[in-house]
Amino acid sequence: MINMLSILDKKASGLSLNEEEITYFVHGYAKGEIKDYQMSSLLMAIKLNGMSDLETSLLTKAMVSSGDVVDLSVIPGIKVDKHSTGGVGDKTSLIIGPIVSSLGLKLAKMSGRGLGHTGGTIDKLESIPGFNTGLSTKQFLQQVNTVGMAIVGQTGQLVPADKKMYALRDVTGTVQSIPLIASSIMSKKIASGAHTILLDVKFGHGAFMKTVEEATILAKTMVNIGNQLGKDTQAILTDMNQPLGNTIGNRLEVIEAIETLKGNGPDDLTTLCVEASAIMLVQGKQFKTIHLAKQAIRAVIENGKAYHQFEAFVSAQGGDLKAFLGPQTKKPLYQSNILAKQKGFIQSIDALALGKLALLLGAGRLTKEDAIDEKAGIILHKKPGQAMVESDVLLELFSDKPITDTLIKEGLSAFTLSKEKPTLRSIIEKHIAL
Amino acid sequence: MINMLSILDKKASGLSLNEEEITYFVHGYAKGEIKDYQMSSLLMAIKLNGMSDLETSLLTKAMVSSGDVVDLSVIPGIKVDKHSTGGVGDKTSLIIGPIVSSLGLKLAKMSGRGLGHTGGTIDKLESIPGFNTGLSTKQFLQQVNTVGMAIVGQTGQLVPADKKMYALRDVTGTVQSIPLIASSIMSKKIASGAHTILLDVKFGHGAFMKTVEEATILAKTMVNIGNQLGKDTQAILTDMNQPLGNTIGNRLEVIEAIETLKGNGPDDLTTLCVEASAIMLVQGKQFKTIHLAKQAIRAVIENGKAYHQFEAFVSAQGGDLKAFLGPQTKKPLYQSNILAKQKGFIQSIDALALGKLALLLGAGRLTKEDAIDEKAGIILHKKPGQAMVESDVLLELFSDKPITDTLIKEGLSAFTLSKEKPTLRSIIEKHIAL
Repeated sequence: MINMLSILDKKASGLSLNEEEITYFVHGYAKGEIKDYQMSSLLMAIKLNGMSDLETSLLTKAMVSSGDVVDLSVIPGIKVDKHSTGGVGDKTSLIIGPIVSSLGLKLAKMSGRGLGHTGGTIDKLESIPGFNTGLSTKQFLQQVNTVGMAIVGQTGQLVPADKKMYALRDVTGTVQSIPLIASSIMSKKIASGAHTILLDVKFGHGAFMKTVEEATILAKTMVNIGNQLGKDTQAILTDMNQPLGNTIGNRLEVIEAIETLKGNGPDDLTTLCVEASAIMLVQGKQFKTIHLAKQAIRAVIENGKAYHQFEAFVSAQGGDLKAFLGPQTKKPLYQSNILAKQKGFIQSIDALALGKLALLLGAGRLTKEDAIDEKAGIILHKKPGQAMVESDVLLELFSDKPITDTLIKEGLSAFTLSKEKPTLRSIIEKHIAL
Repeated sequence: MINMLSILDKKASGLSLNEEEITYFVHGYAKGEIKDYQMSSLLMAIKLNGMSDLETSLLTKAMVSSGDVVDLSVIPGIKVDKHSTGGVGDKTSLIIGPIVSSLGLKLAKMSGRGLGHTGGTIDKLESIPGFNTGLSTKQFLQQVNTVGMAIVGQTGQLVPADKKMYALRDVTGTVQSIPLIASSIMSKKIASGAHTILLDVKFGHGAFMKTVEEATILAKTMVNIGNQLGKDTQAILTDMNQPLGNTIGNRLEVIEAIETLKGNGPDDLTTLCVEASAIMLVQGKQFKTIHLAKQAIRAVIENGKAYHQFEAFVSAQGGDLKAFLGPQTKKPLYQSNILAKQKGFIQSIDALALGKLALLLGAGRLTKEDAIDEKAGIILHKKPGQAMVESDVLLELFSDKPITDTLIKEGLSAFTLSKEKPTLRSIIEKHIAL
């Protein structure tokens, strides 16, 4: 007979749990039959003793089956999904979605809101007047079918086990665990129903995983889970030591996404979006090689198809792009420039520091209940590798709250300078597939 | 600022907790300010990552200060205590107490009840008509002062943190942890207020610690805690592969204790009680050497002082020894002999198997709420090393329930036989002091 004590003993002894045991505790906990204090003890045992790849896949599978799974089979074609582990200035979904759906894939994406120093796609989209992130499942599927893409907040009762487990992990010191992080992310991706999944695993200062090594382990674990559970899952490891692109803040990031879709985006953001889109297009069998996919991507950016797809997507979800791009009726009350104090080169810009600064300006939320100021944020006028002279504008800050000297000091302290032109790391560190 | 999340992170990372952190979680949990699910997560982290000797001492100290501490300072002389980690047939407190108190020490002992296959001193004493184990603290201290010894159930609000932590460990897979076991035992001993403590740490089949190695670690940990917290604490490791003495069951064990105090006890029990008493007498500065102490112990057994001390102790707590030793008014309804089926030597007798058999006969309880049949139990007519021929009585069983063939088979299967006379392990494996 399986019971929670035998499962606790097994995992605490360093043994592997089998499918029956894993399903027992995941479903039992989701249904409230297993107590918080037993689950937290088990989560700590998992954190400290780890889980094999097989156990982690079985954990993910049990989490998926604790709730609904979106049925995308009513939509013809290849349904793809992407997921970023979160960072500062990450507006890639707004760019990759229109690119890949303009080239024949169907993107049915559920996104989250920002928390702490990391932004969320749903918050960014809601800076567009009228944009509705709360479609019903029926509306969601219909839009993916007709327009080729939709991005909504979570719909249906997906992975209730993860909601409960995450809340418990948050207060029991069991957040930092590769099997628990990987199964939490992958269960939601798999329940979302797509055929293929591309994971953008961030590493560095502004990311959850601080080192390439940690990020690699997380990425490999997730790629393995996805493939074990029948999804073509691949991952890219991308640099989140520096903020991505030149903007942080919801409205500013949507504008930058639009510019990137039109071919005017910053290098790092453009490179990442083109590479990621190309991988997704090959995963989704629209092109045989990354090279061919990239050619096609450059074409849809140049001929305007990618941006038109963005317009169609926004309009289908009720967003009013004209109003968004027209003269701003509600401008931020405060604007401030941070200037360079000396000559030199930008060696690096601390993504975490600028993420926190944007949060203080009003662009993010500290608790789930906080309101967001969509106009607040930061424009980066200089990026790593660029030269500067005294009084060059480094950062432009926007807020409805007065911008204090302390904030300006914090912005400045995010910069590391050098006398020589530094060598830059490429935005994509590696591509991980099975 | 200390909080539970920082403590969880620290322990999960394998770092040591300091006094402030340990006191925070122990007192916070005792007061209900820390949730079960956070405490269980921490207990699992302690089980898996361990605790240093210093941490374990600080844990014990914090547990002690979560409640009352018995103040024995009103009693002149040296107050001693002993503790057994529990086994089958362990009636040593009933023998050692009268011996050491007849030789000048004061024994102020709090004991527990039996659970599962292990017996408890309080249950044994309650088989004596009128014996009162529920003295008030005042009565308890007064009796120790005048008679030299008293044995009661727990008095006052001692170590409330241990009660709560033990209940939680029991349902979260965190019972088997040396620091948690050691601090649980030692906190109660230290709160009981004695100057010196002798620990009888059992190892083997019938004990909590199965091997000498585990028992040694537990004993050393507890000896260290006691000395760190200012008590002369020593330990003996004793064999619990075989039952101790020739009886199991509450009434039978009291009778055997009396016989041992009169000098007619079985070898293993007598040896253990004499050795343990001698160590306690040297700890309590009544004798300079173990050798001198043993001489004095043999004298009080031979001249009847030890037994008279037992009589005085029982009588002070209201027990009627005459009624207990007189013709039994309530005899067990069933009695059954288990006979040898062949010729040979007894190699070993499985203490755990006989402990469980005694439980089934009614001598123990499976849950804390079960009633005990004081008359139920087992007399061992053969012990390891002895020769037997066919039809020799090996065991005599007593119960108010019919003694089935299944029970008889289980009794028989506790015996391992050999053709040659086996070499026996001595009852005391080692003596551990700082």
